[in-house]
Formats: sequence, C-alpha cells, structure tokens
Amino acid sequence: MRKQSIMPVLYSVAILVFCVGCTTTPGAHDPLPSWNDGPAKRCILDFVLAATAKNSPEFVPGEQRIAVFDNDGTLWVEQPIYPQISFAIAQVMTTAPQHPEWQSEEPFKAVVTNDRDTIARFNIKDFEKIIAATHSNMTVEEFQNEVTGWLAAAEHPRFKRPHTELVYQPMLEVMRYLRAKGFKTYIVTGGGQDFVRSFADGIYGVPPEQVVGSVGKVRYDYGRDGRPVLVKLPEVILLDDKTGKPEGINMMIGRRPVAAFGNSNGDRQMLEYTQAGTGARLMMLVHHDDAEREYAYGAESKVGTFSDELMTEARQRNWGVISMKKDWKVLFPWQDGATPDGRANVDGQRSGARRGTPALAASG
Amino acid sequence: MRKQSIMPVLYSVAILVFCVGCTTTPGAHDPLPSWNDGPAKRCILDFVLAATAKNSPEFVPGEQRIAVFDNDGTLWVEQPIYPQISFAIAQVMTTAPQHPEWQSEEPFKAVVTNDRDTIARFNIKDFEKIIAATHSNMTVEEFQNEVTGWLAAAEHPRFKRPHTELVYQPMLEVMRYLRAKGFKTYIVTGGGQDFVRSFADGIYGVPPEQVVGSVGKVRYDYGRDGRPVLVKLPEVILLDDKTGKPEGINMMIGRRPVAAFGNSNGDRQMLEYTQAGTGARLMMLVHHDDAEREYAYGAESKVGTFSDELMTEARQRNWGVISMKKDWKVLFPWQDGATPDGRANVDGQRSGARRGTPALAASG
Repeated sequence: MRKQSIMPVLYSVAILVFCVGCTTTPGAHDPLPSWNDGPAKRCILDFVLAATAKNSPEFVPGEQRIAVFDNDGTLWVEQPIYPQISFAIAQVMTTAPQHPEWQSEEPFKAVVTNDRDTIARFNIKDFEKIIAATHSNMTVEEFQNEVTGWLAAAEHPRFKRPHTELVYQPMLEVMRYLRAKGFKTYIVTGGGQDFVRSFADGIYGVPPEQVVGSVGKVRYDYGRDGRPVLVKLPEVILLDDKTGKPEGINMMIGRRPVAAFGNSNGDRQMLEYTQAGTGARLMMLVHHDDAEREYAYGAESKVGTFSDELMTEARQRNWGVISMKKDWKVLFPWQDGATPDGRANVDGQRSGARRGTPALAASG
Repeated sequence: MRKQSIMPVLYSVAILVFCVGCTTTPGAHDPLPSWNDGPAKRCILDFVLAATAKNSPEFVPGEQRIAVFDNDGTLWVEQPIYPQISFAIAQVMTTAPQHPEWQSEEPFKAVVTNDRDTIARFNIKDFEKIIAATHSNMTVEEFQNEVTGWLAAAEHPRFKRPHTELVYQPMLEVMRYLRAKGFKTYIVTGGGQDFVRSFADGIYGVPPEQVVGSVGKVRYDYGRDGRPVLVKLPEVILLDDKTGKPEGINMMIGRRPVAAFGNSNGDRQMLEYTQAGTGARLMMLVHHDDAEREYAYGAESKVGTFSDELMTEARQRNWGVISMKKDWKVLFPWQDGATPDGRANVDGQRSGARRGTPALAASG
C-alpha cells in the first residue's frame, strides 16, 4: 500500500452522480416535509430509490445499509460553543471546591474565576485538559447520570432552550426515512462516546450500540460493594475525528457506510471513505449559512470549520451541500410547521426513543 | 471509586438463582434439541422465561436484551491450537520468501524451518510477534480475503474438517433461540476482531457490527488508485480478554449484557460484569470434559485455561457450568442427530447467514 500524496487524487472508481439534474416525483406522501424542494432534497430521495429499488443497478442489500451522521453541527446546534465543552466547564465549576489547586492552575483558573477573555482564547489543548479532568475518575454510569442531569438544566444562550431541543427537524426526518427504508443509522462523532450515548436514544432514536465517538480508556474495577464497574480514565483510545472517523467506523461497525452526513473538515475522510464503496452512495454536508435563524460560519469559525478547500472537494466529488437557509423550511421540532412525530422511531431497531417533547426527560 | 481487593468480594446485589432446583416444561417444541435435559438446559430455558415473560419480576426490555458469547472454545473448537494462530503460522510460511531475515530470527525461524519442538514452547510474546507481522501492512479488506481463503482450505488436524464446521451445534441453537426471543447476539472474543468478522456472519449469523474482539490500529490512507482504504498496523488498541472484555463491551456496545457465555479464565470478568446488572441474568461456562468426542482440558492447558479457581467462583456465584460430555447430545452440525437448520438465522437482524453447509462458502 503506497501512499501517493497527502491530498488525495480524485480516485478512479466511478463517482455516481445523484445530486445533479435528477427529477423527483415524491408522490402523495412526502417523507421530508421540512425540506424545500431543491437539489439537496432530490439528492436524498434519489439515493434512497437507487439503493432500495429491487431492479436498481446500484441496489444495496439490507445488511449493508449503514448510514452515518456526525452530531455537532449536523444533528444539533454546535455554536457558539460545543455543548460538551459547556458541560465540562459546568463540571469544573461544580467540582472546584474539591480542587483548590485549580485556583492557580490554567486552564481551570480561568473557568473558576469566570475569566471570559481567557476562556475565549482557549485552544484544543486547554479543552482536552478540562475534559480529561471532568470526564474521569467516576464510573461510566455516574458520568452519564451527570450528563443527563446537566442536559435537563442547561439552556442554550441564544435560544433559551435545552440543547436536546436544538436538534434539526430536517435531519430527524432523514434519519427516520432511512430507517424506514431498512438503514441502520449511526452517529459518528468527534464528541465523547459516553457523552453522546447519554442522550442519542432519547432525542435521535439512535441506541448506544450505534453511537461511535471519541473513546476514553476505562478500568474494570470493583465498587465499594464489590459490584463490578468501569471507571473512566483520562486517556484517549480513539479520537474520532478526521481520519479517526473511518478508523472508528471500522472498529465499531466493520462495514463501509453507504450514506454519510457531516458539516465540517472533521467529516471529510468519513465522506471520502463512504464514497469509495460500490453501489448507491450518499455524501452530504450541512452548510451553516443562516445567521438569521441559526448561525453562519465557515473557515474562520472556532468550531465546525467548513473550509473553502472542503467546499471545493465537495463540488469536485459531487457531494451534496445542504444550505440551511435555502433547503430547510424549519430548523427545530418545536417551530411552527414542524411535523410533530419528527423524532419518532420507526425502524424496529428496538430503540427507546419516545414521541413528543421533551424527548430526553422521557428517555430515562 | 476505591479498589478493595484484587479478588472481588461477593457483592451485595441479589444474585438470582436460576440454575438450581428449577423445573421445566419444554412443551411441544424444544428450542434446544441438541441439549440433554439437565441443569444447564434448564438454566437457559428458565432464564429466557424470566427475561421475556411480560409478568416476570425480572423482565428485561427488548432494547436491553444483549447476549455475549466468547468464540474460541465456546462457539468453536480451540484445541489443539487457536485457529487464528494456525492462520498466522500459515501466513508466515506464505510470506517467508519476502522475509529472508526470518531464516535466522525467532520466532519466525522455528516456523519457516518447521521446528515443532520450538513452536510447542512458544509463549504469548512469540505469538504476538507472529500476529503483528502477519496481520499488518495490508488493508482490512485484503486481510479478510486472506482469512476467508485460508478457512476454505485449512483442515483441523484431528477432525479433518474446516474450522468453520467445528462449531458447536448446541451453542448455535442457544444463539438462534435467544435471537428468536428478541436478543441481540454479540461475539466478544480475545481473538482479532477483523479475523472473526471474516466468518462470524456466515457461520453464526452474527454480523460484523456485533463482533467485539481485540482491535489493532489502522491508518486511513489512499490506495494506488487514490481510493480511501484502511491499512492494518502492528499496534494493539484493545486486548479484548479478561478485564478487556467488559472494557470492549462498553466501548462497542455501551450496554451491560444480560447473558454471557464463556469457557475460560479470560471470560471471568465478562461474566461478573454481566451478573452485576438488574433483572434476569444468565452466566454460563462451557467445560471441556469430553476427551472422547472433543477434548478434556483444564488448568494445565496452554489454551482456554479453565482454572480450579474459576470453577470455585462459578459455583459461588451460581454460574451455570455446561458439561460437554453430559449436556450435549451432539457437538457439531454435521453429526447424526443434529438439526439441519441449526445455524439458520431467525432474528431479523439482517444477517447474511445462510442455511445448510458449507456455511462459509455461501456467505461470500
């Protein structure tokens, strides 16, 4: 296996063109009612037809129907700061009394003294330290209970709603539609796997075993009562971002996906890897170009970077680019016009997802 | 989280006694026809009833029905040498011409010169070196093609049959029965994940995404034609044995199993971890006590060690111990008396498992 160059050459396997010049006849029932008619919606409908119609030359057998979704910025709002970072900062505040050393030790000092200027300049290493400190030395169950408790109380600074209500209604419809067509939907996130598993079933209908994320090491141990537990350690086994996404997919799923949705440079390799298989393929990127209803951000963003280079690659490879502004009629399930059962689970994957809101509270 | 002792104290949560003094009324259809009536068979039937009957106090909701199975010695024959080791040795022979240094470098020298005495004294480090050398520097797909090719040709030294036919018919029946009752069946093996995924769907009806095994690192790269591929590296991320089994289960599944089957010291923590949940539980160990029909081995064995200490723990914790000699009417699907559809998949998990033999050839 020779490595040819850092930037991939456009590979020679046939790139199937779904996203250009197709016509659709949605018929009586529209599975994607929150999507405006346009190339992005056509992309999805044409792909599903090509993958599932018995006589399709690009038919994909049922067991190979794997669809992967990035989380932050693809399924829920990631601006102005990743929700997991907000959680970690809240955890620092909560546990600060047990850590007097944080009063003088950065990056913790900035958090406990609420030094917003310094926090605004935090780099990835600072966040890694905060996550390592707040996501370890407790059992996986204890950690997930803390996440659930935080999510029930925390509010988005702009929308004044829980993060669990800031999920994109159009994407919920895509997940539901794909599941109805025999796809297994997975989340493949750079976020912490234990973190996202705390809420993915409740808000997306994606059970824990279908959440692939960044993985921390755990230690098998016996609790106070001798009961076996897994204790989280501050050591990363898999950073599920960029090249880590196909690596994580191979580790956790062991199949090449057929459809992949992302929104940033961190999803590039996942989409490339998906496209390189045979049969119908769907690769799509959510572009946040809607400052009025949500946010508009690109290369200069601190989170969810969508570089000009990524946009160029998307055009070259015929990946679908979803314009939040043009393609989505509504953004969130609680907005006027959103279908009420958008988050219902209809795939028979034994998910615990519940109808209606608040979804997370009902998910236990 | 305080660590109390190396050996766990018997923890205080109620240990449910399924395996002692139960009576069964199998009724007209026997889901386990290859099992003799006895405590092991009763264990399984009573567990399924307790977990699935709507009015059962130990009812387990559908999405939590996770059953985990060790592979070597639990689902297929592991003596006189793990099949994966046989494969690795075959790979050394095949690729030796490209490695002149192996002529003088142990442990490879012993293999290429067929020095059986030295091979018989190999320790785990020797095998690790052989596996690292033969399971890397190729794509995951190339590796799995090599496994499939080897399995189609290799023969067990005693039974003169492919390894894929040396799967235990009674265990195939258990897997099929659990799937029919809404369980998701997973393999949790100390063997290589990519190795076991090559055949698990074909012979057990367990798809790749439900195989948890020892994981090697991969590198995302672009092949000769620019096509994205994953290249196997000689570096282990997870050793899925002993404490690594609950760790791997948490990483890959994210739920505590309800039922666990093993056969050796390497499965101890997986069974402990399974038992420590609430609701109906099933923990079982296959005991190889049948030298006439298969093998009899225990503490002194080089593979699949089942120590006296493990047997003591099994008795204390009320784990079911399966006597191959007493509990199993037949061992393999091709023997007289085995039900022909023993390996059929009936769980609706979109598995590619086929009926009849040879199963692997049919699995593509």
